Amino acid sequence: MADEDDAKASVLETNAAFYRAFTRGDIAAMRALWAERAELLCFHPGGSLLRGRAEVLGAWEQILAAPPPLDMRCHEAQVHLHGEVAIVTCYEGNGAQAPHLAATNVFVLEGGRWRMMHHHAGPLAQPARGPARARPSSLN
Amino acid sequence: MADEDDAKASVLETNAAFYRAFTRGDIAAMRALWAERAELLCFHPGGSLLRGRAEVLGAWEQILAAPPPLDMRCHEAQVHLHGEVAIVTCYEGNGAQAPHLAATNVFVLEGGRWRMMHHHAGPLAQPARGPARARPSSLN
Repeated sequence: MADEDDAKASVLETNAAFYRAFTRGDIAAMRALWAERAELLCFHPGGSLLRGRAEVLGAWEQILAAPPPLDMRCHEAQVHLHGEVAIVTCYEGNGAQAPHLAATNVFVLEGGRWRMMHHHAGPLAQPARGPARARPSSLN
Repeated sequence: MADEDDAKASVLETNAAFYRAFTRGDIAAMRALWAERAELLCFHPGGSLLRGRAEVLGAWEQILAAPPPLDMRCHEAQVHLHGEVAIVTCYEGNGAQAPHLAATNVFVLEGGRWRMMHHHAGPLAQPARGPARARPSSLN
């Protein structure tokens, strides 16, 4: 179980790094955390499927280059581990605002490191919770 | 590669069974295709996270019991295999209408059978394609 807890903690750290790169507009950090061998996938809110490294990272480059910084925060991240694949579910919101998106992030283990291979974010019909009421991210 | 193709075909069959159960309002078939050991997860369009067998299948029971039948069709399903976990991306639409939802379906291998453990569907900003123009589901 210690190994499983370590793996979950590593996945959550990569998930947190994703939102830090998003908020900082740091394309180099964003590129570094996506998988290199697995095929990359991404559904941005309302968008059609982006597929492959060029499409997925090209779209992130455009998003991160556009001012102002988005201050995209992750709430209630939960890791579900299945061998060398991890599914993270969470909510996303801008700064102090209540989360307005639901997200599924999928990570795979490559060369001993957890890397993102899929991001799917879509709108919540109503904000899930105010950040002040959001539970802290957990390993559940 | 034959084994991988077989696995992808099995995943696509389970994915198709999910949309058949959805369209037919068949809760028994729906229950039978979800995982029994893995924790179940579900984001319905606009909804907060449903978690665990009781919450996820309870919500499906309500959805499938509500007339009229939804005739939910799956378009452009693509399988991405990672060992005993498979990620399917697709679009969803009602009957002959253009797809209006993007979906991520996650399957895990349990007792030699692929079972659904996560469904995440969210609205497309504009219909992706008319069904007549949709590519057939593929093993890519």
